[in-house]
Amino acid sequence: MSVAVVVHAAGDLRLEPVPEQEPGPHDAVVAVEYGGICGSDLSYLRHGASGLSVLRDPLVLGHEVAGHIEALGEAVTGFEVGQRVAVHPATVCGHCRHCTQGQPNLCESVRYLGSAASRPHTQGAFSARTVVPADQLRAVPEGVSTRLAAVAEPLGVAIHAVQRAGDVRGRTVLVNGAGPIGALVVAAARRAGAARVIAADLAPASLGVARRMGAHETVDLAGGAPLPEADVVFEASGAPAAVSAVLRSVRRGGTVVQVGNLPAGDIAVSLGALVFREVDYRGTFRFVDEIATALAYLADGLDVGPLLTHEFAAEDAVEAFRVAGDRRTGSSKVLLRF
Amino acid sequence: MSVAVVVHAAGDLRLEPVPEQEPGPHDAVVAVEYGGICGSDLSYLRHGASGLSVLRDPLVLGHEVAGHIEALGEAVTGFEVGQRVAVHPATVCGHCRHCTQGQPNLCESVRYLGSAASRPHTQGAFSARTVVPADQLRAVPEGVSTRLAAVAEPLGVAIHAVQRAGDVRGRTVLVNGAGPIGALVVAAARRAGAARVIAADLAPASLGVARRMGAHETVDLAGGAPLPEADVVFEASGAPAAVSAVLRSVRRGGTVVQVGNLPAGDIAVSLGALVFREVDYRGTFRFVDEIATALAYLADGLDVGPLLTHEFAAEDAVEAFRVAGDRRTGSSKVLLRF
Amino acid sequence: MSVAVVVHAAGDLRLEPVPEQEPGPHDAVVAVEYGGICGSDLSYLRHGASGLSVLRDPLVLGHEVAGHIEALGEAVTGFEVGQRVAVHPATVCGHCRHCTQGQPNLCESVRYLGSAASRPHTQGAFSARTVVPADQLRAVPEGVSTRLAAVAEPLGVAIHAVQRAGDVRGRTVLVNGAGPIGALVVAAARRAGAARVIAADLAPASLGVARRMGAHETVDLAGGAPLPEADVVFEASGAPAAVSAVLRSVRRGGTVVQVGNLPAGDIAVSLGALVFREVDYRGTFRFVDEIATALAYLADGLDVGPLLTHEFAAEDAVEAFRVAGDRRTGSSKVLLRF
Amino acid sequence: MSVAVVVHAAGDLRLEPVPEQEPGPHDAVVAVEYGGICGSDLSYLRHGASGLSVLRDPLVLGHEVAGHIEALGEAVTGFEVGQRVAVHPATVCGHCRHCTQGQPNLCESVRYLGSAASRPHTQGAFSARTVVPADQLRAVPEGVSTRLAAVAEPLGVAIHAVQRAGDVRGRTVLVNGAGPIGALVVAAARRAGAARVIAADLAPASLGVARRMGAHETVDLAGGAPLPEADVVFEASGAPAAVSAVLRSVRRGGTVVQVGNLPAGDIAVSLGALVFREVDYRGTFRFVDEIATALAYLADGLDVGPLLTHEFAAEDAVEAFRVAGDRRTGSSKVLLRF
Repeated sequence: MSVAVVVHAAGDLRLEPVPEQEPGPHDAVVAVEYGGICGSDLSYLRHGASGLSVLRDPLVLGHEVAGHIEALGEAVTGFEVGQRVAVHPATVCGHCRHCTQGQPNLCESVRYLGSAASRPHTQGAFSARTVVPADQLRAVPEGVSTRLAAVAEPLGVAIHAVQRAGDVRGRTVLVNGAGPIGALVVAAARRAGAARVIAADLAPASLGVARRMGAHETVDLAGGAPLPEADVVFEASGAPAAVSAVLRSVRRGGTVVQVGNLPAGDIAVSLGALVFREVDYRGTFRFVDEIATALAYLADGLDVGPLLTHEFAAEDAVEAFRVAGDRRTGSSKVLLRF
Repeated sequence: MSVAVVVHAAGDLRLEPVPEQEPGPHDAVVAVEYGGICGSDLSYLRHGASGLSVLRDPLVLGHEVAGHIEALGEAVTGFEVGQRVAVHPATVCGHCRHCTQGQPNLCESVRYLGSAASRPHTQGAFSARTVVPADQLRAVPEGVSTRLAAVAEPLGVAIHAVQRAGDVRGRTVLVNGAGPIGALVVAAARRAGAARVIAADLAPASLGVARRMGAHETVDLAGGAPLPEADVVFEASGAPAAVSAVLRSVRRGGTVVQVGNLPAGDIAVSLGALVFREVDYRGTFRFVDEIATALAYLADGLDVGPLLTHEFAAEDAVEAFRVAGDRRTGSSKVLLRF
Repeated sequence: MSVAVVVHAAGDLRLEPVPEQEPGPHDAVVAVEYGGICGSDLSYLRHGASGLSVLRDPLVLGHEVAGHIEALGEAVTGFEVGQRVAVHPATVCGHCRHCTQGQPNLCESVRYLGSAASRPHTQGAFSARTVVPADQLRAVPEGVSTRLAAVAEPLGVAIHAVQRAGDVRGRTVLVNGAGPIGALVVAAARRAGAARVIAADLAPASLGVARRMGAHETVDLAGGAPLPEADVVFEASGAPAAVSAVLRSVRRGGTVVQVGNLPAGDIAVSLGALVFREVDYRGTFRFVDEIATALAYLADGLDVGPLLTHEFAAEDAVEAFRVAGDRRTGSSKVLLRF
Repeated sequence: MSVAVVVHAAGDLRLEPVPEQEPGPHDAVVAVEYGGICGSDLSYLRHGASGLSVLRDPLVLGHEVAGHIEALGEAVTGFEVGQRVAVHPATVCGHCRHCTQGQPNLCESVRYLGSAASRPHTQGAFSARTVVPADQLRAVPEGVSTRLAAVAEPLGVAIHAVQRAGDVRGRTVLVNGAGPIGALVVAAARRAGAARVIAADLAPASLGVARRMGAHETVDLAGGAPLPEADVVFEASGAPAAVSAVLRSVRRGGTVVQVGNLPAGDIAVSLGALVFREVDYRGTFRFVDEIATALAYLADGLDVGPLLTHEFAAEDAVEAFRVAGDRRTGSSKVLLRF
């Protein structure tokens, strides 16, 4: 048995033993060392749902993990026991038009760790021991700690989001919403050559993290400051009013990338500016294989340390989730240690 | 004095003499022969406003016109009196970043014929005689009638809309809303190499026009047919419910181009699919210089005849506007003849 | 035994029986009806080699074929015996980065019908009966004759070449070299929305075909006419002097696509203009899956009839190859009938 | 009179007084403080020509300069006397299709400081005092020394070169030729998010500079090491053999950007790989306005210090040119101090 962080229903999070999966010939057993708590993990705990995925059975949470290989199926090559790895959380079909045309993140048969999107649910990786197909392993490079490697997944999300914006070299970039993903987008946009990166948020602590992650400037929205014009906006707050605001504040002909989920169902948004300002408004969903780029950036010195505001032992998962879900704590990315 | 079609207030359209402008050295006097009635013309008459532009003084309507040159300022070269021309309706500053970076359609100082966006209003071209800077003239090629050349402007809008979609070669394209612009988008999408073009509308007459303009298939939405999946969708209805619908029906990773104005202010839209389907939702506004491409296509045999369902003498402008504004008449593009 | 067109060495082409392959559970047996002779087929016969691929064993030629299904392996679904099909000639690995990133045409393990690139050679399809994996079948749409469907492969090559040029809408396009591929590029460029398509060649007969395939204008290079400036040039002659010429004649900032093979080894080219005119010079190789787009275009009325200047029974293959290889005959695409 | 660095003929460089130009109402007088010696400056001295531009009259060299404003024409706004500035060396027409479509670097009427491309020659800026149109001034940001600002022009060239490569995020980049421009391309590619940047050269000193400018890895070509495969190659050596080599070493479907001039006239190059490897081979010429991005990057901490291996007083220009032209000195960018 392996001890795992399991959500049973809204508000009901438990640390409990789960049966260990038997690895197949192409699988690997990963001894998880660190796992980051994501917004979707928090949503399952708070609402019993994340986006359109509704919890129907107990679900091991977690899809941002790194650790080392404990065992390998006999058909696996290219890895060895003991090697440090981050886990790519998606299993895709490999055959649909999305998979064959370079967009496996849009595969309609995807199974993502720690997700209730299909049933039976895809159990997650907040577990002392987790079994994954070996082609989802990503070697952690020399010089990158396993702890920082747990951030490779959300950093991959941020890198993909910046990729979705097209060329940001020399551009002024606004990141609206400076939670963990927003702060990683700040770092990814700087890596991609943005000339000026501005972060906007209501919470001073989040703006502090954004600044330490590389923002040239921050805008305190609680103080009533208006959004500055930018060539490219990453809308990472998910608030309908923010969508209306950024469609008006982005420069004409500019690009808005919507990062992270919007509320399900109808929302009231002022979309008119999309047309007469000729805006590109683009969704971004997870990542293709930017988790590899994320590990390369970490190896190359991109410092995600400022993001890691809190760390808890897995036994204290309930408290960890409380801190992660309450921005008054000043938390950004909260890690579990297994 | 020249006789012009002037809107004085919502519901108050008059045919009346207007003072002739004096042409400057760089201007041309155009004897207008044909003018097409656009949705914004209709909106000024119906609501006393078009989008955010509110009528505050009498306004000569019209920006889709063709005719011949009656006189030229002494500094004009490259044109001659008597030559047939279509009119590019925009005067831009030429110096702002939009103008110098290839997006003059986004110039913030633009003046567009027949627009109340600034004050004094920019008087339009539904006038027997109209004065424009000579660099807004576009020669009508041999073999294209002046009557068809009046469609160059809205065809330019359609070509720009298709350009905004990126590469449509070999793609399945859905045009939602088969009014005049939608029908021209059908033709432009075919010219751009779409493999299959589907038009959807509530009105059978509009679907008939779309089919004659090149749609491979039509979907009668009044009959309750669902929207088919498409690689690229042109949303030309402007209805919020349609926006929600096409964001769900476009294929994952696909593109939706919003053609024509959405209602001002907040609208209720289901935007969530933008993110998890990773959709590109793009506005399109007027055109850069696709009016030249439009004339080239007309010369090359693109037939916009099916669009021209009605034609009236300028004196019958009130009736012409009634017919253009009432889809039960089966009207698509309605022409005025001067 | 099936009768096939086999090249044994340079100058040695034979019509002879070849053993029939046994179809596997995922294969189909195609009764070939028509096959087009390609430049690489001619090259194997003339030089015993095509590009870097040297003939070492007898090789059944042919990769541009259409016919009907004669038998299907038991695991094949989606097709039925008797159905008319064109054949996609490439078998790819499906796993390499090129295959998974949407560029299977660059797969390093590709096997292409009728090619000596690897050994044992990949036998071709100029055979009364040929066995291919069923996922290489492409259904011929209603209304497209099997004869015209034999052109789907080279038309796919042309469509891919035009795709490589980026957006050609409204552009002036020059096609230098109006052999079969050049003429198909003319048609594909028109389909993609080019405003003006000019073909240049030394042979009047080729210019005639190009005109019938849609060229607006032709330039007779034998008469000493200079190359006109164009936004996009497709260099389909493969002559080093032509490469130098088009790099100078394309407009500054324009694009040159090199279609079809250049001579192996060093060639003398004036490349300097690439830099100070900031030209994009792009190779194009076969196609991704534009053979499907080709079939859609054929169904939609694209007429490749003018290309099909000659047709021979398979028994007269030697004569067919002689005619195809001698431009003085006025030949463009030469078909074999099985 | 202002003292200037003047080339009279191949091998004849003089420091001599030149008449001061009279500034017009839209001009600025710049007191030049630092100027970088470029390859074209060296070429005029060595060959009496640079590319196709042949020296016919004495020419003040220099186009990479920074200093402060000494006087302003009465019509100039937005700048003040004493302000530190870098100089954008190009005067363009502003009206041609290149200028209006965002490619002023391709303007056919351009006049570039220190160039013999037209006659009378455009005198350069290696002069204690130089007069330029005020719209060619670029303010040097706080925190950037005037000395480093002299590198803004070649850094702009490098940023434009990287922009020409398209998206380099997460890619492996090879820079072949690690002279001053190659070393700046290394820095610009890292800024643009390349995951791995490799520099190749024959000279160990150049490889050392490249490493200090950010190369992750260097390849000593003198030692016979082969070129590694890369997604994107910047060919900055200008050697025909290198062009052949990189077309073969770039990954299939990859991009080669040719930076800096190739020899005029025919050169022997193995171009065949362009086609069957489907390579994009792109020229890059000067810059659009990436000099502004260059200054932003300098302000943001991009350190070009390692490039500045030598500095001479203007009086020692002859020696400075000797050192700059002799790579055995270990020189990279050589500065003149006025």
